Amino acid sequence: MVKDKKTKPSKELPLGFVDRQEKELLIRDFVISNIKEVMIKYGFQYLETPSFEYSDSIGKFLPDKERPDSGVFSFKDESKWLSLRYDLTAPLARYVARNYLEIPKPFKRYQLGTVWRNEKPGPGRFREFQQFDADFVGTKNLMADAELCLMMSEILKKCGLADNDFTIKFSSRKILENLLDLYKITVKERRLKVLRSLDKVDRLGWEAVEKLLGPGRKDESGDFTEGADLPEDVIDDLQSQLKYDDEETFTYAAWSKERGGDAYNDIKSLEDSFKLFDLKNVRFDPTLIRGLEYYTGPIFEVDINFDIKNSKGKTVQFGSIGGGGRYDNLVDNFGNYDCPATGISIGLDRLIFALMQKKDFKIKPTRPIVICVFDKDKTEKYVSILKKLRTSNISSEIFSGEGKLKKQMEYANKIGSPAVILYGDDEIKSGKATLKNLGTGNEISVKLEDLVDEIKKII
Amino acid sequence: MVKDKKTKPSKELPLGFVDRQEKELLIRDFVISNIKEVMIKYGFQYLETPSFEYSDSIGKFLPDKERPDSGVFSFKDESKWLSLRYDLTAPLARYVARNYLEIPKPFKRYQLGTVWRNEKPGPGRFREFQQFDADFVGTKNLMADAELCLMMSEILKKCGLADNDFTIKFSSRKILENLLDLYKITVKERRLKVLRSLDKVDRLGWEAVEKLLGPGRKDESGDFTEGADLPEDVIDDLQSQLKYDDEETFTYAAWSKERGGDAYNDIKSLEDSFKLFDLKNVRFDPTLIRGLEYYTGPIFEVDINFDIKNSKGKTVQFGSIGGGGRYDNLVDNFGNYDCPATGISIGLDRLIFALMQKKDFKIKPTRPIVICVFDKDKTEKYVSILKKLRTSNISSEIFSGEGKLKKQMEYANKIGSPAVILYGDDEIKSGKATLKNLGTGNEISVKLEDLVDEIKKII
Repeated sequence: MVKDKKTKPSKELPLGFVDRQEKELLIRDFVISNIKEVMIKYGFQYLETPSFEYSDSIGKFLPDKERPDSGVFSFKDESKWLSLRYDLTAPLARYVARNYLEIPKPFKRYQLGTVWRNEKPGPGRFREFQQFDADFVGTKNLMADAELCLMMSEILKKCGLADNDFTIKFSSRKILENLLDLYKITVKERRLKVLRSLDKVDRLGWEAVEKLLGPGRKDESGDFTEGADLPEDVIDDLQSQLKYDDEETFTYAAWSKERGGDAYNDIKSLEDSFKLFDLKNVRFDPTLIRGLEYYTGPIFEVDINFDIKNSKGKTVQFGSIGGGGRYDNLVDNFGNYDCPATGISIGLDRLIFALMQKKDFKIKPTRPIVICVFDKDKTEKYVSILKKLRTSNISSEIFSGEGKLKKQMEYANKIGSPAVILYGDDEIKSGKATLKNLGTGNEISVKLEDLVDEIKKII
Repeated sequence: MVKDKKTKPSKELPLGFVDRQEKELLIRDFVISNIKEVMIKYGFQYLETPSFEYSDSIGKFLPDKERPDSGVFSFKDESKWLSLRYDLTAPLARYVARNYLEIPKPFKRYQLGTVWRNEKPGPGRFREFQQFDADFVGTKNLMADAELCLMMSEILKKCGLADNDFTIKFSSRKILENLLDLYKITVKERRLKVLRSLDKVDRLGWEAVEKLLGPGRKDESGDFTEGADLPEDVIDDLQSQLKYDDEETFTYAAWSKERGGDAYNDIKSLEDSFKLFDLKNVRFDPTLIRGLEYYTGPIFEVDINFDIKNSKGKTVQFGSIGGGGRYDNLVDNFGNYDCPATGISIGLDRLIFALMQKKDFKIKPTRPIVICVFDKDKTEKYVSILKKLRTSNISSEIFSGEGKLKKQMEYANKIGSPAVILYGDDEIKSGKATLKNLGTGNEISVKLEDLVDEIKKII
């Protein structure tokens, strides 16, 4: 390669992106296989849509409007704009509209995929994460919504959480819609601003949200977010309606009487199904908002009940590990489809982060037995040992670097190899290899034909 | 949701992106788990880098310079540019530079991930695909290169290919480098143009490549690609050097004598290791180029030996399902690291496409038993059957749509359900459900406690 004289490129990662290490990845594989198993048991089928969609196909439903490109990564391609998907639901709606005649109704699909949000990066706020979704498309049957919560619960328990480790909060988007109607807030943009502001209560607290609902808010970095410009008395009323501390006296019945039938029907129907399913760790919570615009009915969110600590051991505001809801109009955006739908999404990275704090995963990465190299001219001897081990499915390697025995031993220890095989001139003469257990430091002399058996005692 | 009056969004996908269906995805899961298993056996460990990197970190090593943004998807972020990775090797080099002191040497890692190329889309040319890579970093030992080919062969056979189904072609980048030195082509940009033109012989044929090496070429769409401006006699000589039909008389020995030691050493060393490993389906091929700039030594590519047909049954020019090579200077770009490396990459989508033509995969998607709904007020009865089935790990569902029995049966048939359960008033009275096998059409009356056993005979 001909070399340029140029400045050195950056070794760093852009903010909001991370490298992931083996332990986390192996736990992720374990979690993914559990999720797949449960979703298949519940009758869902596999689908994968691509990372990119035409920007107009997936709309602009994102909660964070603070950045000029509305929270998504977009490119101009020939004459049209493409965007990286910000969730798996909007692309599903596009898929359903495109294949409306072919798909079964209801269409039950699961999908695993990376999604991207071009939001302001911060500690613990990633701009890329993996989601695992399941959706019912083409049914307004509210038992589907309840079943998604049941399935979520089964998945979490299969992954190692106990009943009291998590709570599935539920509500209906209609409650907020009804309140906005009541306050005569009719312009869509303003309704969205209120929705997105209220969704930030968990993260920013009520004081900040009051500003977002009113005149606007400047954050610590100095960035200003325009407010929804609600009158003070409306903000106060909203707060008193949505902030409740007394679970005992607060029931959906009170809501329903005030707000009318639709929201009541959503809540009642979910509660009836939960009872049938015997699902205990659910709780009605009218303060639940969900940031995405497209929800139309029942909404749900899964909270972790134990403390989550960051890498410095400090307990953090963790948020939810998943959620979802009903979006009866999303497919209809593409034309004239009567296609009510509901779905749930699991935030894989967050779930895994929580699981790693709760459960002592016994997942141990497999490390190879290292066959040391004394003399490159004897490589044939090492290869014959290597073949024996690999034929018996034992992870193994001939030291592939350059360097003397000391360096090779350092390497084997560094990678956590269970044992090294020494096969030098003396060993070759005697027909016996030395097997050194790196856990105990023990060395034994082993006939080549017994190597596999001896190694199996160690790994 | 308040509705906008606006034009309908597109239901189509951008060119070069596709939706993937269950059968392909299940085969992909099977292939991925095989690849992981073999790579772990060979001593590699898991790593995952993010989709985005700073553009300057991953450089501009892409083969297709025909588009203004040099083949990658890039965004301006604050003051710096980010790009979606176009392979998994350049990000690995960045990772190694960033964590140089912590990683073992050699560092053997495997990674699965999506990569993106913002190239001109066309039939069968995707702009997003999944790769599975394994690399040795920090060793100049050429046995590592040979072992990658051995591992590739084991993976392909584990996935269902026979020895004669594929060939691993190998060569050394030094051959082309030596030729360019011989022709006194010294300017980097021009060397790259020659490299990228020669890489297109398989796809475009020699006639088109001659134009690319000379004055430039206009493709069918009218787009013009600048040429490398080589004199005609040089192009003729290059062609005679790199186009050979007679495998018998053409040996690397002839090359090595003419070109000097380095290239010879690469080829000789690979051949020696292949012999030790007993690896048969390899073939030296000096016409092998590999389009990426960063290779410095041995290069390899895996070809499929059977015909590949497109969806219309026409045999297509398929290209390779994987390849790789040595890139001794890539990490060094980040500073002063002595970090020679070599790696291999499997194109998952292409491998799966080929596998699906060769092997009759018996992978059958699991479809749920459908419990039909006669009367919503009897839901409790259906739920109790559902619980029984799911507790026994049987994929099952209560029909979740709306509609009478006829519609429910249509649905069950459409999704390929193995059987439906009918539990109407008569059945409830008798305490026996009707189990209808949708494969045979047979109906039997089954006591609820025997349902699981009867279903297990069907699925």
